[in-house]
Amino acid sequence: MEDESTKWGSTAWTHLSSTRQQSPLIQCITNFVSMDLMANTLLSAGASPAMLHSLQEIPDFTPNIHALCINVGTLTSDWLPAMKMAADFAFKAGKPWVLDPVAAGASSFRLEACLELVKLKPCVIRGNGSEILALFMASVGSSKGVDSTHDSTDAIDAAKALAEANGCIVAVSGATDIVTDGKRVVGARNGVAMLQKITATGCSVTALIAAFVAVDPVHAFEATATALSVFGVAAEMAMDFAKGPASLRMHLIDSLHGLDQSTVLSRVNITSL
Amino acid sequence: MEDESTKWGSTAWTHLSSTRQQSPLIQCITNFVSMDLMANTLLSAGASPAMLHSLQEIPDFTPNIHALCINVGTLTSDWLPAMKMAADFAFKAGKPWVLDPVAAGASSFRLEACLELVKLKPCVIRGNGSEILALFMASVGSSKGVDSTHDSTDAIDAAKALAEANGCIVAVSGATDIVTDGKRVVGARNGVAMLQKITATGCSVTALIAAFVAVDPVHAFEATATALSVFGVAAEMAMDFAKGPASLRMHLIDSLHGLDQSTVLSRVNITSL
Amino acid sequence: MEDESTKWGSTAWTHLSSTRQQSPLIQCITNFVSMDLMANTLLSAGASPAMLHSLQEIPDFTPNIHALCINVGTLTSDWLPAMKMAADFAFKAGKPWVLDPVAAGASSFRLEACLELVKLKPCVIRGNGSEILALFMASVGSSKGVDSTHDSTDAIDAAKALAEANGCIVAVSGATDIVTDGKRVVGARNGVAMLQKITATGCSVTALIAAFVAVDPVHAFEATATALSVFGVAAEMAMDFAKGPASLRMHLIDSLHGLDQSTVLSRVNITSL
Repeated sequence: MEDESTKWGSTAWTHLSSTRQQSPLIQCITNFVSMDLMANTLLSAGASPAMLHSLQEIPDFTPNIHALCINVGTLTSDWLPAMKMAADFAFKAGKPWVLDPVAAGASSFRLEACLELVKLKPCVIRGNGSEILALFMASVGSSKGVDSTHDSTDAIDAAKALAEANGCIVAVSGATDIVTDGKRVVGARNGVAMLQKITATGCSVTALIAAFVAVDPVHAFEATATALSVFGVAAEMAMDFAKGPASLRMHLIDSLHGLDQSTVLSRVNITSL
Repeated sequence: MEDESTKWGSTAWTHLSSTRQQSPLIQCITNFVSMDLMANTLLSAGASPAMLHSLQEIPDFTPNIHALCINVGTLTSDWLPAMKMAADFAFKAGKPWVLDPVAAGASSFRLEACLELVKLKPCVIRGNGSEILALFMASVGSSKGVDSTHDSTDAIDAAKALAEANGCIVAVSGATDIVTDGKRVVGARNGVAMLQKITATGCSVTALIAAFVAVDPVHAFEATATALSVFGVAAEMAMDFAKGPASLRMHLIDSLHGLDQSTVLSRVNITSL
Repeated sequence: MEDESTKWGSTAWTHLSSTRQQSPLIQCITNFVSMDLMANTLLSAGASPAMLHSLQEIPDFTPNIHALCINVGTLTSDWLPAMKMAADFAFKAGKPWVLDPVAAGASSFRLEACLELVKLKPCVIRGNGSEILALFMASVGSSKGVDSTHDSTDAIDAAKALAEANGCIVAVSGATDIVTDGKRVVGARNGVAMLQKITATGCSVTALIAAFVAVDPVHAFEATATALSVFGVAAEMAMDFAKGPASLRMHLIDSLHGLDQSTVLSRVNITSL
């Protein structure tokens, strides 16, 4: 019998190699800080990024994409209508879309915007523990039972509830990345701590999730977990050559571009929780 | 008799060394993704970039520049008036301006915007085959005779027609970069395939065209070809040290900064078609 | 008796190590070109960047930050209200804020905007000689006595007058960085010339000033000088490995992340003028 880890490695390789072969078109409506690294992450994985956010273009363009990534990092009120319109067009065209609720709890304006986006049926939501907890508290939970320490147990419960309530996959980034569809929960244990010292790595892994979901839309749970793990494996390989955050960033993109099957099979570390 | 290739190498070196000596001021109204790499490309070539796009500033600022680069990559309706105003000010002040019609065919809004910009007398238009064909079809050609395969012969004819109709230079990037003024056609055969895996390299070479045209405005045809070739030579030198797209990007900028006369003379590969 | 240079080295190390320990939250309202490098500069120094500029979020968010950095690099009229609101909230909450008046003299719109911001009580203003002279001429000085050559003596006098008139610290970047509170003047002599070939390094050192002022707000004069010097020391270390502007940029961030006490103590070069 094939063990769980071997199966995940094989699935991860299928997702990466499918992305390279199919070069899915991924529309990103994202923040100003991360556009460059997100586009280069998608290119290095074999996908085709399109940073296009004009209200006038979404009706023409969005129906032709393979997946959409929405990220609220530098949100202002004039960007929100395009995010909502694109999410709506993607959903109606049957294209998966992924939400990155950056700093969801930073203001009531941002939290409200994220909640409006969640109602537009994302296929996947990926955030850190605080972001997922903020969304959970505002949309699903009560103020009781989730204290301010935001430990991983809290995040798992919040993620499961959020996933179940919205019929989507929820991923929580951390030392162990958590992925759940509300019932199943897996932990992806790839990556290096120094990623947190590089801006936009979280945004970029969300874009990679969009690419993997684009090539395997009926297995969004698996595609989310493998994207987190493959990005983490690329970071692990890069760390061997890195002398600090900026060289890690460079080697990460190089590594994602060059990642081979045996490395993916041997390094991917995903297990049920 | 000096052969064609030697002549082009010498012209390319003149353009690069003039850019270093004169440090032309290049205003860029461009997309959010490419601003960083475009600015660093211009700086590494010796030019002085100014990313300035406010309607309130263009009347004061644009008359003092040496060339303008307009790129519609992340176009929205609120940016278009500044692009048109800047193009108009540049043209009236006798300063060359260069258009990068990114994804011209992605939407009717974008195509219409590009056509409006084309009417404002760009000195050079640089795009890939699909972009040049989209502009040609909408502004010059009919829907007959250009099929969806967009091969290079189609692009050459479209580029020539577009150049002739608008009295400008048209450049088509590809494995061989094509440059035409409507009558003459040259092919520049420098560069490496991996450039396509780095976002904003097309945008950046358009900015370099603006710099070279700024220092030799009466030879815009030649300056366009040499800019494409010099950028390609820098990429070739960089490829010797690159381990993937991100290190290629870094070495490309380093290489453009350090490019010496003998390398330019021996590597520039431009010939009549 | 401890000599002046030793004292400054020790102060610089205190500021850097405090930033690493306290990870101050630095809100940046800045230009599109520099967001990536500024965020990575702050992260590599141990601070926590937040690129957040929405009018709807400032009332919730800005009172909780530790310092604010405002940079007018790609200013448009729709961004100015958020800059002013954030400056006002920061000042009223007793949080220091730092102004980078990029290209202050490029247009009357921009100069007027900078003057409005100066009235909102920045703790520090950092610019190059031309920018500081433009602000001085428009806000303090007359058109006499400052000619167009903008040499360093002019900049020192302008900086002192500007600092005194506004009760703030003024820093002038150059081969020697000048810092003054209107009475005291020091020169920081770290850094390398090639920094000028990398976009956004000036913006990034201003962000580092915000971080150092955040951890030592009662010594803003000292924190400004040490931030300029520490950034310069990181560049000096990086220059040993750089082959051009792009690799210098990478090594600069790596070097800032890894900078140790003995390097800071031995390299920081700040003296009274």
